[in-house]
Amino acid sequence: MPSPQPEPLPDGPGIVRGETGAQSLLGYVVDIRDGTARCHLDIEPKHGNRHGGLHGGVIACLLDNAMGYAAALKLDPSGKTKVLTVSMTSQFLASAREGRVTASGTVTGGGQSLLFVDGKLVDQDGRMIATASGVFKRVRT
Amino acid sequence: MPSPQPEPLPDGPGIVRGETGAQSLLGYVVDIRDGTARCHLDIEPKHGNRHGGLHGGVIACLLDNAMGYAAALKLDPSGKTKVLTVSMTSQFLASAREGRVTASGTVTGGGQSLLFVDGKLVDQDGRMIATASGVFKRVRT
Amino acid sequence: MPSPQPEPLPDGPGIVRGETGAQSLLGYVVDIRDGTARCHLDIEPKHGNRHGGLHGGVIACLLDNAMGYAAALKLDPSGKTKVLTVSMTSQFLASAREGRVTASGTVTGGGQSLLFVDGKLVDQDGRMIATASGVFKRVRT
Amino acid sequence: MPSPQPEPLPDGPGIVRGETGAQSLLGYVVDIRDGTARCHLDIEPKHGNRHGGLHGGVIACLLDNAMGYAAALKLDPSGKTKVLTVSMTSQFLASAREGRVTASGTVTGGGQSLLFVDGKLVDQDGRMIATASGVFKRVRT
Repeated sequence: MPSPQPEPLPDGPGIVRGETGAQSLLGYVVDIRDGTARCHLDIEPKHGNRHGGLHGGVIACLLDNAMGYAAALKLDPSGKTKVLTVSMTSQFLASAREGRVTASGTVTGGGQSLLFVDGKLVDQDGRMIATASGVFKRVRT
Repeated sequence: MPSPQPEPLPDGPGIVRGETGAQSLLGYVVDIRDGTARCHLDIEPKHGNRHGGLHGGVIACLLDNAMGYAAALKLDPSGKTKVLTVSMTSQFLASAREGRVTASGTVTGGGQSLLFVDGKLVDQDGRMIATASGVFKRVRT
Repeated sequence: MPSPQPEPLPDGPGIVRGETGAQSLLGYVVDIRDGTARCHLDIEPKHGNRHGGLHGGVIACLLDNAMGYAAALKLDPSGKTKVLTVSMTSQFLASAREGRVTASGTVTGGGQSLLFVDGKLVDQDGRMIATASGVFKRVRT
Repeated sequence: MPSPQPEPLPDGPGIVRGETGAQSLLGYVVDIRDGTARCHLDIEPKHGNRHGGLHGGVIACLLDNAMGYAAALKLDPSGKTKVLTVSMTSQFLASAREGRVTASGTVTGGGQSLLFVDGKLVDQDGRMIATASGVFKRVRT
């Protein structure tokens, strides 16, 4: 039995679409309504790899964004503080082929300059597709 | 003095365009003419992050592809052997804003099942933008 | 106020001491009494780095062992299945200077051949000192 | 035919022994005579894992030290500048069982605060045993 079709993502405060070129290109939606950040993507053929699954680079893109947002929200509740990815490791546990995937990040340590963040990407049934960890740096402006 | 505009990439044998959904979406070109694999991308606004630079997720995408191709070419000169990314670490050394970037991969070890690959992404002036390492797994079909 | 001195670790079933050369050398104790694996180390000067803290390599050693044990216990409740570390990433969140540190691992995915494991190392007050993720491979004998 | 026994390591300027507790414990020697840093270890049973090979944690220790030294030498030719490991990824390509292994590091990027370093560990025949990459942070004193 196929998973039920995911519901359309809402619009409104705390929902971010098309903030960056890459976000528009991939078509994911960022939801920061409850103080955390989640990146949702409804898988389409344009996101595919050579095996018909979601491309590892697209997965890395979603994880990078969700983790970067988690770092930014830690520094400032508006999430507007700019952070750069210093390094990032992704582990690819399972393939995702259809439906909606959601990336999220959790700050595990660090301070006002460097932040350590863990990330995960799950499908709409809660199955773990990928895990990640990264180091992010605040951009002093 | 700005870097000279990169020359258009050729078409022909060993030049791969649009093989996957993700490749078409991002618009990079794979060159496997000399037995190695390089992924070239001419940076456009659609590839950007919040800071106006090339998005880390796009960088990870290019590195993942170049390293996966390196693994596939190691297993079979045609590059058609399917491999999956098991894990991947990227380090972001500098930002890239315009011109052409090129990702490449080098197999450092492994055997017929698991392969270890290093990757790098440089800009058209040869400046190192990102380094990476990954583990790739042959897909038995 | 200093943290209270940690209690001596017990001996008995499920407590592993000196299983490998490296374990004897570093002097940590593995506790697999409840189906998970934890590696405990009471910090001594011999474990130190140039800054008087616990050496990153020692931390990596403890994390590697705890994660490897987690993988082995997933494959077989006795923990005797041999696994090798394929790759491992550690992130160093804080320094540890005295008392007891404990590394543990959690399998996040994989199958009968490759396993994905997350790890963490905390001090005796529960403060997160390091996080890790790794890929482990079953050794077919 | 077994590899010839490695020659004893010299003493003298640029040869560092027992600088830290962990270095004394493991018994490796650091050679910074030519402006780079190499960590040499003659494998003994006390360095072993469950499979009779060199323990992954010991490998990580050597790589961490060689890369940290590379970062310190980049900041200051004396190598006395203190650096901390922020994150580190190791990939284990082959096992090492006897003889001498040597870890070395190369700075790939960064500036005065964060440095990116690649590392490798080879055996006395030049065979690649492990590769690594890490982010190191200067300690402001």
